[in-house]
Amino acid sequence: TANKKILVLPGDGIGPEVMREVRRIIEWMDRRRHVSFAMEEGQVGGAALEATGSPCPDETVERALGADAVLFGSVGGPRWDSLPFEKRPELGILRLRKELGLFANLRPALVMEPLVDASSLKPDVVRGLDLMIVRESTGGIYFGEPRGIETLPNGKRRGVDTEVYTEEEIARVARVAFDLAKKRSGRLTSVEKANVMQTGRLWRAVVSEIGKAEYPEVELSHMYADNCAMQLCARPKQFDVVLAGNLFGDLLSDLAAALTGSLGMLPSATLGAPDASGRRHALYEPIHGSAPDIAGKGIANPCAQMLSFAMLLRWSFGMEEDAAMIETAVEKVLAGGLRTADIMGPGTARVGTSVMGDAVLREL
Amino acid sequence: TANKKILVLPGDGIGPEVMREVRRIIEWMDRRRHVSFAMEEGQVGGAALEATGSPCPDETVERALGADAVLFGSVGGPRWDSLPFEKRPELGILRLRKELGLFANLRPALVMEPLVDASSLKPDVVRGLDLMIVRESTGGIYFGEPRGIETLPNGKRRGVDTEVYTEEEIARVARVAFDLAKKRSGRLTSVEKANVMQTGRLWRAVVSEIGKAEYPEVELSHMYADNCAMQLCARPKQFDVVLAGNLFGDLLSDLAAALTGSLGMLPSATLGAPDASGRRHALYEPIHGSAPDIAGKGIANPCAQMLSFAMLLRWSFGMEEDAAMIETAVEKVLAGGLRTADIMGPGTARVGTSVMGDAVLREL
Ligand SMILES: CC(C)[C@H](C(=O)O)[C@@H](O)C(=O)O
Ligand SMILES: CC(C)[C@H](C(=O)O)[C@@H](O)C(=O)O
Repeated sequence: TANKKILVLPGDGIGPEVMREVRRIIEWMDRRRHVSFAMEEGQVGGAALEATGSPCPDETVERALGADAVLFGSVGGPRWDSLPFEKRPELGILRLRKELGLFANLRPALVMEPLVDASSLKPDVVRGLDLMIVRESTGGIYFGEPRGIETLPNGKRRGVDTEVYTEEEIARVARVAFDLAKKRSGRLTSVEKANVMQTGRLWRAVVSEIGKAEYPEVELSHMYADNCAMQLCARPKQFDVVLAGNLFGDLLSDLAAALTGSLGMLPSATLGAPDASGRRHALYEPIHGSAPDIAGKGIANPCAQMLSFAMLLRWSFGMEEDAAMIETAVEKVLAGGLRTADIMGPGTARVGTSVMGDAVLREL
Repeated sequence: TANKKILVLPGDGIGPEVMREVRRIIEWMDRRRHVSFAMEEGQVGGAALEATGSPCPDETVERALGADAVLFGSVGGPRWDSLPFEKRPELGILRLRKELGLFANLRPALVMEPLVDASSLKPDVVRGLDLMIVRESTGGIYFGEPRGIETLPNGKRRGVDTEVYTEEEIARVARVAFDLAKKRSGRLTSVEKANVMQTGRLWRAVVSEIGKAEYPEVELSHMYADNCAMQLCARPKQFDVVLAGNLFGDLLSDLAAALTGSLGMLPSATLGAPDASGRRHALYEPIHGSAPDIAGKGIANPCAQMLSFAMLLRWSFGMEEDAAMIETAVEKVLAGGLRTADIMGPGTARVGTSVMGDAVLREL
């Protein structure tokens, strides 16, 4: 049904080349499964900056607001590293999160059995790992005011950022995490620094209140962020769903991803609030960056972008069956021994981006 | 020489019992090496709260100010977990850092060969790991104003914390890190979120300026905090000295500690600015907490507290030889196969706190 409108934003670096493999899956779905999407392509990041002067042009924001889902590639690269704050490619993703109200960033960290040896951790520590970090993504220190660098009367500079969270901001992302925990193992770990930060105290209080009032069946525990970083490294399988604010979530979700040893495999979803009809804005992106060092060489791993599309099918269109089909196809290809360079191991065969794409299509 | 004044603050949980083993080393030094210290004992944490009503009584602060070095145990426990902010045992350590101006927290993460299998990471990934995290410890979001929880006109609560760094605060801790890097491998990694935070932008600018002007021989690189968490997990040996602000340093230093798999082995030092005569306030503490679950059972690992004392000898009294002697003794005991419960492995013998202490003394 062509009323499923997807805005595709390939962005910079390896973004366009891994996105190409997703387009092939979409064409296949069109032919074989008779699902068709209304696809549009837009500009973001360094590419948008060079074309329009802004890393996130208004036109892109408007089209994203009009779409049912955004499929995002990646942004950034050394070419734009020395630009001032308001021109940096990263602003592309930050502005989209904010303008679309995408407050719940879902970051799965999953170890597929064929890749258990890719991790820097011992196989027993990560085998079967399957956790989900829910990160608040439109609030906290990323956007709080006042912020800036000023020069003091003594001529010295002083930098300021403000971490702000309201009760409503905490509550709505907590509900996303509780809902997920309910569907999964029934366990939720909420993370902050309530021993040092006031936002942390409020975070802990609000999450506890919601748990008691609305999710008595979910087993809620609280953990300080420093301890959580330790525990993720030492015994990651103790976690199922982990809830954190924007800044802690940024670090902890990247750490959780690193545990798997296969960043090129990990997707993410960022969701807004559902409206009365249940529609919500949503953006899907691989967690690997734009990887400028390997861009254009045809060796990037397209799996994370494909799995991001699978998340899109599941979360935005309720197409659980098709999502699972893509996930299974990817896992089977890996089990068959094909690997892109980033996840090579002994006894496997190295292939490039498009051969990996071919193989997934063949499995489908 | 009895002009070396040490204030001992055992604190809560396992603090007192592991401190006992350090006292035995001190007595041995007095007898065998004819070094004697002027030792005093004070109160801090939950213990101080119950005795005086404050987790960090003024008397303790005054005695710490008068001492050449503070040897700290650990604070906290479930008994005090539900107390309001200003009564919590953690305030003990936070107030001491602030009042003594202890701005540079040195957190080594070291994998001794006999413990290479204690890590959750593969032996090859951590064998020989020896990195040092330098964490700013009197600024940033830990102390910035405004901070608090207010109720908005709509009846909802709102929490606020402020991250503030001045150029001088960044510069002085950066110099500690550069000095260390110079003595070690000549490499320094400075960590922030300059892509999102204004304090991060200032941090990066100031560290770069100091590097260029004062330490041209040190190879400086910059890394975003989320990426650093990833890299620490994936390839920890790429790092030598890592510099970070208070909050990122809190997470990253705990993560670095977890990499070693032996928290019960890791000491830390927190240093103030040297005065004209080169004297500086300094506090030494193991990084493990008060571990209330095993307190009083005689099974805690005393090594981290002993190694904290070794750091004290090195950093506060310039007694490099004695420091190294203690470190070597600990390593030899481990090589001999003795282990406390926390670092047990196949083919080793489990011993309690005091037997471990005996063994280290015998090595000395
Ligand atoms: C690109 C950057 C601004 C962003 C963030 O810090 O949120 C990234 O690290 C992420 O996690 O999506
Ligand atoms: C106890 C707590 C306040 C403290 C901190 O967050 O600084 C601890 O985690 C540490 O690292 O010493």
